[in-house]
Amino acid sequence: MSDVQAEAPRPETGARRGGREARRALRAAPLPQNERPVRAGMEGGRYKPLSDGDVLKIHNTALDILEQIGLADAIPTGIEYMTKAGAKLTDKGRLIFPRSLVEDTLAKAGRNFVLHGQDPRHDMEPWGKRVYYGTAGAAVHMVDPLTGEYRESTTKDLYDIARMVDTLDNIHFFQRSVVCRELPDPLEMDFNTCYASVMGTTKHVGSSWVHQDHLKKSLEMLHMIAGGEDKWRARPFVSQSNCFVVPPLKFAQDACGCLEMAVHGGMPVLLLSAGQAGATAPAALAGAIAQEVAECLAGLVYVNSIKPGHPAIFGTWCFVSDLRTGAMSGGSPEQALLSAASAQLAQFYDLTGGTASGMTDAKMPDAQSGYEKAYNHALVGNAGANLIYESAGMQASLLGFSLESLLIDNDIIGAAQRTIKAIEVTEDSLSLETIRDTCLNGPGHFLGSEQTLNRMQSEYVYPLIGDRSNPKDWVEQGRPTILDRAIKGTKSILAKHYPRHVSDEIDDAIRAKLPVRLAKEAMRPA
Amino acid sequence: MSDVQAEAPRPETGARRGGREARRALRAAPLPQNERPVRAGMEGGRYKPLSDGDVLKIHNTALDILEQIGLADAIPTGIEYMTKAGAKLTDKGRLIFPRSLVEDTLAKAGRNFVLHGQDPRHDMEPWGKRVYYGTAGAAVHMVDPLTGEYRESTTKDLYDIARMVDTLDNIHFFQRSVVCRELPDPLEMDFNTCYASVMGTTKHVGSSWVHQDHLKKSLEMLHMIAGGEDKWRARPFVSQSNCFVVPPLKFAQDACGCLEMAVHGGMPVLLLSAGQAGATAPAALAGAIAQEVAECLAGLVYVNSIKPGHPAIFGTWCFVSDLRTGAMSGGSPEQALLSAASAQLAQFYDLTGGTASGMTDAKMPDAQSGYEKAYNHALVGNAGANLIYESAGMQASLLGFSLESLLIDNDIIGAAQRTIKAIEVTEDSLSLETIRDTCLNGPGHFLGSEQTLNRMQSEYVYPLIGDRSNPKDWVEQGRPTILDRAIKGTKSILAKHYPRHVSDEIDDAIRAKLPVRLAKEAMRPA
Repeated sequence: MSDVQAEAPRPETGARRGGREARRALRAAPLPQNERPVRAGMEGGRYKPLSDGDVLKIHNTALDILEQIGLADAIPTGIEYMTKAGAKLTDKGRLIFPRSLVEDTLAKAGRNFVLHGQDPRHDMEPWGKRVYYGTAGAAVHMVDPLTGEYRESTTKDLYDIARMVDTLDNIHFFQRSVVCRELPDPLEMDFNTCYASVMGTTKHVGSSWVHQDHLKKSLEMLHMIAGGEDKWRARPFVSQSNCFVVPPLKFAQDACGCLEMAVHGGMPVLLLSAGQAGATAPAALAGAIAQEVAECLAGLVYVNSIKPGHPAIFGTWCFVSDLRTGAMSGGSPEQALLSAASAQLAQFYDLTGGTASGMTDAKMPDAQSGYEKAYNHALVGNAGANLIYESAGMQASLLGFSLESLLIDNDIIGAAQRTIKAIEVTEDSLSLETIRDTCLNGPGHFLGSEQTLNRMQSEYVYPLIGDRSNPKDWVEQGRPTILDRAIKGTKSILAKHYPRHVSDEIDDAIRAKLPVRLAKEAMRPA
Repeated sequence: MSDVQAEAPRPETGARRGGREARRALRAAPLPQNERPVRAGMEGGRYKPLSDGDVLKIHNTALDILEQIGLADAIPTGIEYMTKAGAKLTDKGRLIFPRSLVEDTLAKAGRNFVLHGQDPRHDMEPWGKRVYYGTAGAAVHMVDPLTGEYRESTTKDLYDIARMVDTLDNIHFFQRSVVCRELPDPLEMDFNTCYASVMGTTKHVGSSWVHQDHLKKSLEMLHMIAGGEDKWRARPFVSQSNCFVVPPLKFAQDACGCLEMAVHGGMPVLLLSAGQAGATAPAALAGAIAQEVAECLAGLVYVNSIKPGHPAIFGTWCFVSDLRTGAMSGGSPEQALLSAASAQLAQFYDLTGGTASGMTDAKMPDAQSGYEKAYNHALVGNAGANLIYESAGMQASLLGFSLESLLIDNDIIGAAQRTIKAIEVTEDSLSLETIRDTCLNGPGHFLGSEQTLNRMQSEYVYPLIGDRSNPKDWVEQGRPTILDRAIKGTKSILAKHYPRHVSDEIDDAIRAKLPVRLAKEAMRPA
């Protein structure tokens, strides 16, 4: 737990008999990382919305889609790469992918690649059923926690979000969350999005670019921060979030140019297919997944036709429509099912899977925001999704971002992680002797037993801002809701945590050469 | 959907191309029960916090506990029943249960018994992995949604809660939620608790009694409502929530008297063991479950030693302590794990299992209330718990009740049920032909496709008060949070829904004979 977290508001503790002093002493000492009850990369897989047979049917349908329907609108370089690998261009201009090509691609695709942080303690190993939660974007508004006002987001907002994420234990990576709306020039916007992100946190960063020239400028900066291109390539700490496909089944031209440059530049890519069931994907959930799997497999063929084994995240982000209006419903239970099922498909292919969870439809951090995020996080995490994007701070189905939600969601994710850790069943934890001793010889309760003290920190998580006080104490505190506590905690973090992992010298060199638009003053305490 | 629900606030729908008129027409018609996307008794089981081997280890530990430690404080009649069946009384006064006795009990225990509603359409078949959500208690306060004031609950509050539950599709049974605090006489309290419950809803009711004489009075009333004792015994629509055990491993004397009378009176019993991990049960979660399983098995021996096959619900309600204070933490992720694991144990025994979920630590319906309820409901429901108690309205770890939460929680449960329904994978839902038609011949999107229209109601749930409007429309509505909408919805239901399933004639007869304390005026529109 960082210093900032230690000072965030915590529930008051009441007096209580039985081991009280011992518990207090234990509580006072922050736990070393390896003794904490939850940590990055816990193993999920205990929740399976699909049977094994269902997974196979979806896989086979995806292969049928690729072989019989294919994708339109590939760019010339893409056509060249993919046809050389075995794809076929139809006379209607669609790229068709024979089964054997997909199977060959799956055999040689990149696996078990580390996603690096600038600080190695934030390195992620997102494969198998290991679960990491992070942010994503791209909201265009910041939400005022008290008035509900939506105002346009800025580069400074993005930087503030990044440095908050930098302090939060349960948010494991940072993908740019908001759009720098004050920068009308697309190059400046793309460049500063990446700049504000990597300056704000040492965790792994995801960012996106609308044109490959913008990526080129960003790579210059990343090389400078890394200490040279070779060092960047050895530990790339930024991945590219790439919407290479416009569902249903069309390549996105500019994105494909960026994709190719990412592969050449040694940058891991998130192959992101964001179809929306009932609008750009079938309303039938199984069909929506099948289409997204087909699209991501096409992206995987693309990447591997450029450079076999290049790190690529299988990004089946199946969104959901509210069919009454056609609008996206990010907080729906159908969303939880689609994202959890996506995790199973990535596991089936033994690929690093990325999906989305935590995209409430609520406009503010109210009860709806809480419950929509929570059932999504609990199910998608327990399904074993490797990289869970959009998991913190989002409101209004990705249109707004709330700093206070970020803090609340950190607690939700901590709880979800605790459920992912599940229940340890060993001779000691089964407790026959503890029960015998307590009932036959002991005090008739377990409050002060040695086992209780031993397991207080290893088996239980405690919320950072969630409140567990009783109604009486709560009244004495002035009846704070979790939003009140989140507002206080947010202010505390923002006032104090200004990461300094990039030296002033390097920052000055970047500023001298490249179009940095984030004021230096925004990066220092007032 | 009842009339009341149809008038509760709903999200505004925006204009949209593609099948808009058709969607509107579909939307206007309430769905028949069998075509709704979710319904009472959906089959869970896709989430398994425990492996099969873990379940077996817990079972074996429970048998060891019963055989080696046993239970203290049985009442004389209980000792007689159970020793006759094969239990042994030690010289320290503990009842010991040999394995063979437990196994014999499991062989003859009641299974596949219907829990009846006064209205047969609310009958429940809670076995296998079928899931029903309901309320429980016993809160001592009602929560003011705006000020956070906690005031003592009354019989009228209980009646109001019951009639709200009567209208809410996703709350499948009603166990008395609040204590009638204005009634100091225990008999009057017990009697009126049952009266207010059965008068407020036609769904299955759970209630509790502190003394068997109070139960006797209530049974007189239940016979009158049913139309005679034989009709009551044919369709008992009230079950007894019975805390027969004081964990760890002691029988509760008065409760045991009530238990025996329930069995004689043809009333199903919920064998409720409510140990609290870290206080009255081991802090190690596996041990807490093992102890609760042992206690409920002892209760099952008890019931079956009185009357083999009598309907008994295996009520492993393992609660959780916040070990920093020793206080209960109903909203914790450890709680979700314990309750979900309980479901697996009941399935292992092929018994009707009851457990708890939805007991937030938050004092008001804020984001914390939402998220704690949601991750519990999603996981416990997907584990396939048959009867999920405490699922709606509760605040402050069961100390407070909020009518507005009841409405919010109804939406949370609807969403949880949708995830329990999971994803239909069939040739039609896999959508190969729909995708082909849309991409090669169609409009390039799925908004107006026949499949979308067909699945709009069968595959998607829509919240009753949850808001999916976009920020612009939401601002025009005055930026309501879900709490604002819940307040409005609650007022609307309470103003209109006064159930009339018990005739005035029968009510008058009850009032003439028995100590009804709920004023008639409270049961009519003002």
